[in-house]
Amino acid sequence: MDMNGQRKPSHQGTLDAARSVSTILRMTPLLPVEIGGVECFVKAENLQPIGAFKIRGAWWRLSNLSRAERQAGVVAVSSGNHAQGVAWAAKRLGIKATIVMPRDAPRVKLDNTRALGAEVVLYERPGEDRDAVAAQVIRERGGTLVHAFGDPWVIEGQGSAGVELTQQIGGGGPSRIVACCGGGGLAAGLALACPAAAIHIVEPEGWDMMGQAIATGAIVQAGEDALRTICDALQPTATKPVNLEVLKGRAQPGITVTDDEVRAAQRWAFARLQMVLEPGGAAALAAALSGKVTLDARSVIMLTGGNADPKAFAKTIAEHTPA
Amino acid sequence: MDMNGQRKPSHQGTLDAARSVSTILRMTPLLPVEIGGVECFVKAENLQPIGAFKIRGAWWRLSNLSRAERQAGVVAVSSGNHAQGVAWAAKRLGIKATIVMPRDAPRVKLDNTRALGAEVVLYERPGEDRDAVAAQVIRERGGTLVHAFGDPWVIEGQGSAGVELTQQIGGGGPSRIVACCGGGGLAAGLALACPAAAIHIVEPEGWDMMGQAIATGAIVQAGEDALRTICDALQPTATKPVNLEVLKGRAQPGITVTDDEVRAAQRWAFARLQMVLEPGGAAALAAALSGKVTLDARSVIMLTGGNADPKAFAKTIAEHTPA
Repeated sequence: MDMNGQRKPSHQGTLDAARSVSTILRMTPLLPVEIGGVECFVKAENLQPIGAFKIRGAWWRLSNLSRAERQAGVVAVSSGNHAQGVAWAAKRLGIKATIVMPRDAPRVKLDNTRALGAEVVLYERPGEDRDAVAAQVIRERGGTLVHAFGDPWVIEGQGSAGVELTQQIGGGGPSRIVACCGGGGLAAGLALACPAAAIHIVEPEGWDMMGQAIATGAIVQAGEDALRTICDALQPTATKPVNLEVLKGRAQPGITVTDDEVRAAQRWAFARLQMVLEPGGAAALAAALSGKVTLDARSVIMLTGGNADPKAFAKTIAEHTPA
Repeated sequence: MDMNGQRKPSHQGTLDAARSVSTILRMTPLLPVEIGGVECFVKAENLQPIGAFKIRGAWWRLSNLSRAERQAGVVAVSSGNHAQGVAWAAKRLGIKATIVMPRDAPRVKLDNTRALGAEVVLYERPGEDRDAVAAQVIRERGGTLVHAFGDPWVIEGQGSAGVELTQQIGGGGPSRIVACCGGGGLAAGLALACPAAAIHIVEPEGWDMMGQAIATGAIVQAGEDALRTICDALQPTATKPVNLEVLKGRAQPGITVTDDEVRAAQRWAFARLQMVLEPGGAAALAAALSGKVTLDARSVIMLTGGNADPKAFAKTIAEHTPA
């Protein structure tokens, strides 16, 4: 608890989350890769049942709701992967889920969320404030908001990936972890789970609000005129205090990647790893492949999601075969 | 040893192979999937470093060569995945490798084989007899032929996948294994590794020489007028006695799949598993998805390879999104 009586996410919380997650999900593989002559690892969270790591935080949050909270249902706001995570966990636990999603979210993510039994409420991006839409839903229907990143349980749940990879890599654990960053739920969770590892956060060019927040110590809002990015999963308007609190003075300086670097990483994963990554899920790999992080034998690159739009993915891989 | 003094592949050999393979390769993941309402498993051999299970048999064969044999080098004949497996193992062991490959093999497989340091000798398919080309290479240069499937060491090596999945699934081991079949190296290896499991072999329509051989008890040659198939990895001209000997009276009746069923399986793996499968690597999944095998909770479907041609794969996934 902090001075305001808010629960603070902790290292112990990530260990507890990992134990809970292990009862419902198999460990995702930690696979060896060679990048620029260095052998290191990727953690394949795209192979989770919903195709993304978000299942972890959603599970840990929902499984810690009280009986009364479970009966009232949950509401979440998400561009897609958190939506599927909450819908999956809600279905397992018999909880009603309502998900607020942008109308321009990838079709595959909208369809999958509905297929998991959640009710989807659409909003316009940019323009409508998604948090306001969610607040309205809660006023009308009740229920607990499951925030996509600014929540101690969600942070600890995402951190369970760090507990797993520490166990998988053995020895002294990871030296560094390269992770994409939207609101900072995963990054904060990994920082708590792996206190000895350097944490490198990777954001799309023009969407480096966490990088700026870490540099300045204050939360930065996305501009109205933010660049377009293909990384639909990495477009939050700003991080939250609980995330910045964990990462400030802890994460390495932020890294940004371009759409072209992301597409090159998607092609590389297709040809070398035989795996499908969505743009946001390939951002950390893009940073590694373009030499923006110095890797070593105990470095781990997070592959965070694989819910790619088929037509966009087809276009990306048909464009150019990596040498 | 059989009556002719030939080494016979055995259950113990698959266990020994698995122990050896575990010293150089991490286990590939066994992932839960739901097909037609039944929860079962896929074994993701497409996530091997060369993108296919063939690395197992190549490793076990090459690591059992004598010092003199290693010095003389190895020769292999392959449409691509065995080529990469032999090239990978040869590089690790410091053995010179020459690979005879069809000129129409997927570009990605030709490139990868050369990138692993092997010398590639091309032949025309159909038309030239690949075994004759290999024999000519051996007459000229010496070296040991590493057959893609008709070799007891190779069979045992492929069987190491069965030893692994038995360990991973726990309990009483797998009830049934669904595996694609070219010459029958993998199928024979799995049959030896998992004596209690039903073995279902899956071949492309028009290339069901193993299915016919199992039904009749005699080796069947591919016709000159065999159908075209997109499963480039599953086009041997015939099985070999050592494979048929293991599978006869042991495998279930053969199953065939069409190109359309294979493409649908590739799309399903893309959208649901976030994984890339080449056509041959998706054949077993195609049989499962089209209801040609009755699955249960301890069934394992082998995903055998993911070295897909980017343009062909792009076309396949852009065609149609699974419902």
